[in-house]
Amino acid sequence: MTREDGRAPDQLRPITITRQWLDHAQGSCLIEFGRTRVLCAASATEGVPRWRKGSGLGWVTAEYAMLPQATHERSPRESVKGKVGGRTHEISRLVGRSLRAAIDYTALGENTIAIDCDVLQADGGTRTAAITGAYIALADAVAHLGREGALLGEPLTSSVAAVSVGIVDGQPVLDLPYVEDVRAETDMNVVMTGDGKFVEVQGTAEGAAFDKNELDAMLALAAKGCAELTALQQEALSR
Amino acid sequence: MTREDGRAPDQLRPITITRQWLDHAQGSCLIEFGRTRVLCAASATEGVPRWRKGSGLGWVTAEYAMLPQATHERSPRESVKGKVGGRTHEISRLVGRSLRAAIDYTALGENTIAIDCDVLQADGGTRTAAITGAYIALADAVAHLGREGALLGEPLTSSVAAVSVGIVDGQPVLDLPYVEDVRAETDMNVVMTGDGKFVEVQGTAEGAAFDKNELDAMLALAAKGCAELTALQQEALSR
Amino acid sequence: MTREDGRAPDQLRPITITRQWLDHAQGSCLIEFGRTRVLCAASATEGVPRWRKGSGLGWVTAEYAMLPQATHERSPRESVKGKVGGRTHEISRLVGRSLRAAIDYTALGENTIAIDCDVLQADGGTRTAAITGAYIALADAVAHLGREGALLGEPLTSSVAAVSVGIVDGQPVLDLPYVEDVRAETDMNVVMTGDGKFVEVQGTAEGAAFDKNELDAMLALAAKGCAELTALQQEALSR
Amino acid sequence: MTREDGRAPDQLRPITITRQWLDHAQGSCLIEFGRTRVLCAASATEGVPRWRKGSGLGWVTAEYAMLPQATHERSPRESVKGKVGGRTHEISRLVGRSLRAAIDYTALGENTIAIDCDVLQADGGTRTAAITGAYIALADAVAHLGREGALLGEPLTSSVAAVSVGIVDGQPVLDLPYVEDVRAETDMNVVMTGDGKFVEVQGTAEGAAFDKNELDAMLALAAKGCAELTALQQEALSR
Amino acid sequence: MTREDGRAPDQLRPITITRQWLDHAQGSCLIEFGRTRVLCAASATEGVPRWRKGSGLGWVTAEYAMLPQATHERSPRESVKGKVGGRTHEISRLVGRSLRAAIDYTALGENTIAIDCDVLQADGGTRTAAITGAYIALADAVAHLGREGALLGEPLTSSVAAVSVGIVDGQPVLDLPYVEDVRAETDMNVVMTGDGKFVEVQGTAEGAAFDKNELDAMLALAAKGCAELTALQQEALSR
Amino acid sequence: MTREDGRAPDQLRPITITRQWLDHAQGSCLIEFGRTRVLCAASATEGVPRWRKGSGLGWVTAEYAMLPQATHERSPRESVKGKVGGRTHEISRLVGRSLRAAIDYTALGENTIAIDCDVLQADGGTRTAAITGAYIALADAVAHLGREGALLGEPLTSSVAAVSVGIVDGQPVLDLPYVEDVRAETDMNVVMTGDGKFVEVQGTAEGAAFDKNELDAMLALAAKGCAELTALQQEALSR
Repeated sequence: MTREDGRAPDQLRPITITRQWLDHAQGSCLIEFGRTRVLCAASATEGVPRWRKGSGLGWVTAEYAMLPQATHERSPRESVKGKVGGRTHEISRLVGRSLRAAIDYTALGENTIAIDCDVLQADGGTRTAAITGAYIALADAVAHLGREGALLGEPLTSSVAAVSVGIVDGQPVLDLPYVEDVRAETDMNVVMTGDGKFVEVQGTAEGAAFDKNELDAMLALAAKGCAELTALQQEALSR
Repeated sequence: MTREDGRAPDQLRPITITRQWLDHAQGSCLIEFGRTRVLCAASATEGVPRWRKGSGLGWVTAEYAMLPQATHERSPRESVKGKVGGRTHEISRLVGRSLRAAIDYTALGENTIAIDCDVLQADGGTRTAAITGAYIALADAVAHLGREGALLGEPLTSSVAAVSVGIVDGQPVLDLPYVEDVRAETDMNVVMTGDGKFVEVQGTAEGAAFDKNELDAMLALAAKGCAELTALQQEALSR
Repeated sequence: MTREDGRAPDQLRPITITRQWLDHAQGSCLIEFGRTRVLCAASATEGVPRWRKGSGLGWVTAEYAMLPQATHERSPRESVKGKVGGRTHEISRLVGRSLRAAIDYTALGENTIAIDCDVLQADGGTRTAAITGAYIALADAVAHLGREGALLGEPLTSSVAAVSVGIVDGQPVLDLPYVEDVRAETDMNVVMTGDGKFVEVQGTAEGAAFDKNELDAMLALAAKGCAELTALQQEALSR
Repeated sequence: MTREDGRAPDQLRPITITRQWLDHAQGSCLIEFGRTRVLCAASATEGVPRWRKGSGLGWVTAEYAMLPQATHERSPRESVKGKVGGRTHEISRLVGRSLRAAIDYTALGENTIAIDCDVLQADGGTRTAAITGAYIALADAVAHLGREGALLGEPLTSSVAAVSVGIVDGQPVLDLPYVEDVRAETDMNVVMTGDGKFVEVQGTAEGAAFDKNELDAMLALAAKGCAELTALQQEALSR
Repeated sequence: MTREDGRAPDQLRPITITRQWLDHAQGSCLIEFGRTRVLCAASATEGVPRWRKGSGLGWVTAEYAMLPQATHERSPRESVKGKVGGRTHEISRLVGRSLRAAIDYTALGENTIAIDCDVLQADGGTRTAAITGAYIALADAVAHLGREGALLGEPLTSSVAAVSVGIVDGQPVLDLPYVEDVRAETDMNVVMTGDGKFVEVQGTAEGAAFDKNELDAMLALAAKGCAELTALQQEALSR
Repeated sequence: MTREDGRAPDQLRPITITRQWLDHAQGSCLIEFGRTRVLCAASATEGVPRWRKGSGLGWVTAEYAMLPQATHERSPRESVKGKVGGRTHEISRLVGRSLRAAIDYTALGENTIAIDCDVLQADGGTRTAAITGAYIALADAVAHLGREGALLGEPLTSSVAAVSVGIVDGQPVLDLPYVEDVRAETDMNVVMTGDGKFVEVQGTAEGAAFDKNELDAMLALAAKGCAELTALQQEALSR
């Protein structure tokens, strides 16, 4: 099989991470997985939501959204429709859970980090790009709190990166763009820590159900992809 | 490890399926996984949503919800709050995708089956009980359409069942009740076809990230549980 | 006139009350008026809404809702539509007022009892079944508070039961199922205390306006029906 | 007992009906029951809602609302809160049902009359003033349709008027202003046709439950009040 | 050019201000610009919104709305639609800003004045009538606070009035009714203080863009109109 | 007076226009006024909204919004709040009106151009940057329709640009960043055509009311600024 963009089955798209793309946010980056482009921003504020006050623990939350013209056809704004759609809700929850898996709330102290992932352009893999970029914004926001003397320890217990894998025409492939995504029999998003453990595994049979061998092949690709993304994250954060 | 309710790690809770619990729905059942109790109802109507008209294809959709007093503490109604919460959205989408994986839309013809899964009482595993019960309601609604002469073939390509697995105190366990669920390091919901393939795999590290061995152990438990649920579904549908 | 189900004009449908149908609620019952089936649940919690704090008085509130497939044709969920419909609002208010008429707020102390009446299956008379069942849940929740030592006296000043009456083909009848309800010229819901006084009288001319004689005939039927329901409530609560 | 405003127990407040208070509406009036002031407007348009098309039948609908500063303390706007409250819903439905009881849909033809009752100032009895005034607007809108040649017969089968009655300090009284309303043990709204039959009877025990004698006393007062309102309606419409 | 209603280009419609049209509001008036009729009401309450507490400063806020049958064709209620429309939002903000320009918050002390402008009938110029009438209600509410001893000085720094101007058939005209408004090439709303300074200038090219000469001609007309409205306001407030 | 960023009073901030920043939209640009950064995207689709069908006329619409972390403090998402705020509504309407002033609907034919202006970073002047950038996106979308052969003539009757002006410390200044905006006594947004006529003039006294001389000074600055922006637009479109 030849992929339309000429990549090998186990090859990521070109990844670009532009740190501190925003002036006001305590952490931010513009992350690109090929033509997918997500703006990730983290605000760090003192205090926690009411239900967590006095616990000594911090909080991390995330919201994912897509601009109306990020996709091929303009989609109506959720603010104008007056409600958040199911897909948006689901991905926001996924991003939040993934980041929280990398945080020690005690070390964070009673501070809140709110992360926004806004998809400026979508070409497949927006949720995995969002998680990978959100980690950069989170790390910068944590560093900001550290400089302010607001931390009680080191809140980041690991790094977090994510990638999509799938089976297209019977072939397991890594990091699917839109044209592959719509044709995939199975689509899986995998979130992993920097040391190669799983944080989230979400596989869905789009066409036919899949067996254990196919699952294992996809997980192996995901592990390779996440390891490469982890290296890119480390490089971006060391600049 | 001894489980609080005395079960073996690979043992399901007592499962009860009461078919045709409702008079009006074309298919329905009250399904119980231990104290978790979900009312599943399927309506079968001619025609499909506007965006699918003229395609010759049918449609299957699902909604999941929880009664306010299903849980330990009363939770506010989503209708009164004026919006569907993220968790509800996410599970409704999961139930719908799982059922659609078992359907041949061409054979269904331009008919719509709408499935409602309402949790009357929650004690862990509500989404997996919902999927397992929804399949019963779906099968009865399909049979109803068959008796009406409205089908173009056999729309059910397989059966679908679901179960939760997790790691509690380092031990992989099957079908977690609430008390285990809140303590689990990892929580995974697995949806499988009657012939043992995967439809959905959704694993989440609640505490610590998990490795491939733990993932494999959970998947093996899930396969055992889904096989047993499949047998119970067949028995219920043969009555 | 012969009623379709063979009942005498002044005869109730078979009434079933299954107390403590739920594990978590402080009071609950599944009540059936023929094929109408309503799940009533009462939560009792310390404290009152903000506007009532410090008054020394308790609060009782109620919400009524219907599952989508309770009726002959599936109706869309109010949570998905994003608003509570007029009928739901109206009945929730009626149930709440009816129960509050049986409560001494001073004796209840600053505690709140929230009652949910969810119609699992509808065949006419859902609001009156809801009120009659809600009283059982309320009484059990009050008893629970008593066992907790949270009461300042006996909050239940009377019992409350409700029934529908109507005029069908010129004949006053008691406890109308759906087939009679849609044909009724006049429809009336009557809520009464256990000692035979009126709490709510809501009569509506669906077809032709009604005169005082017809009104009196309906009220007499309602008094008979409510007395029988009161006896059934007492029996259920004494078990 | 002496009423605060010096009226006899069976005496209405001063009633004023200013017909055609608006230029655009096909029928309108400003109706005053003492200091209660309601603006009623009726629009008559060709066609009926989608679900009624082709039936040959017309439709009448009503909405009730209150301006924020109609009451003693400013209440927030329902448009700003983003939802219609339960009380508003309930009264809108009551007004609509009451007017529909006076309409022959076949004679109306496929035309829709939409009636708005906006309370400009509230001093008790706003829903009964709304119904009484809405009938005037309805009659003028029907007359407008008649002049347009859009009717298939005479749609008005009777007139409709409404009044509140209650028991205050043990004394049945007619047409309660706010100061009496808040003290009433029982509050009842009665809608009657011009020939003295009941359209709606809605009695609520606010304090103590009431017996048949009290109910009868209130109904007698209501009949007297509605008869007087009917006469005032006729006079207004004959001008 | 002859205007349809016979006015000179620089002539206002007949203006009527009926002060204290409501009993409960601390200030109110019914203001009429020809057939445009707006009910303005001001409530004065102790305290300020949370975000302003402890600042020593007061707050003035305004809401504008239109009754469904104020216009030629009935428009749906925003409360029923569940959201405030863009036009309503825009005008509410304009009215609020205009009034706040006339207020010294320090002198007002920590009190809030909330002004509601409800259009009972619309015939062009509703927002300018609303502002002109709202000032009357504001002045009366301020006077009420003064009588209560709740002020720390004189909060009214000037009076505020507003009028529309436009270019119709190439001719600058003052105070446009609906028939002129829909034909205007340019439409401008001007809010001025009693001493002839600008508070708001909002000009919009409806058809063709306009040049500086046209702008100056419209501003001159607006100054004349606002001066006359200021005189009418003073007269009304001196009664 | 020296401006904080060293500009002359009549000097624009550095303006950058990056055309075709998006792959899917028919027209797009990232426009920067100093640190204010707005992503403008235009979709061109066949057909018009239902109310305009069969008219032969096209339609242009616009929506403005701000990302949560565009401002100094994160602001909650309007989609999550479930409603569009007043400021957003007001600016969306302004952008739409401004663009529609440059369009000949007959030449556009029954096509719709929908423009989205999303503020990625805010530092004052977001609405004027949005209008200036939206014109670029509009022009490219029109050109796209031209290449598709979908136009009936040349729909662009002029170009449109916008700039803010204000009075800060008594000095009229052009193109205010946030630090000047919050201190301005008067703030005015001016939209002009490429040939120097006014499309919108919106001036607001934030502190003190302003007189005709001040208004004239601001308008002169705006004319200079808009002329320069027009030149930059032409240059960008000619690349």
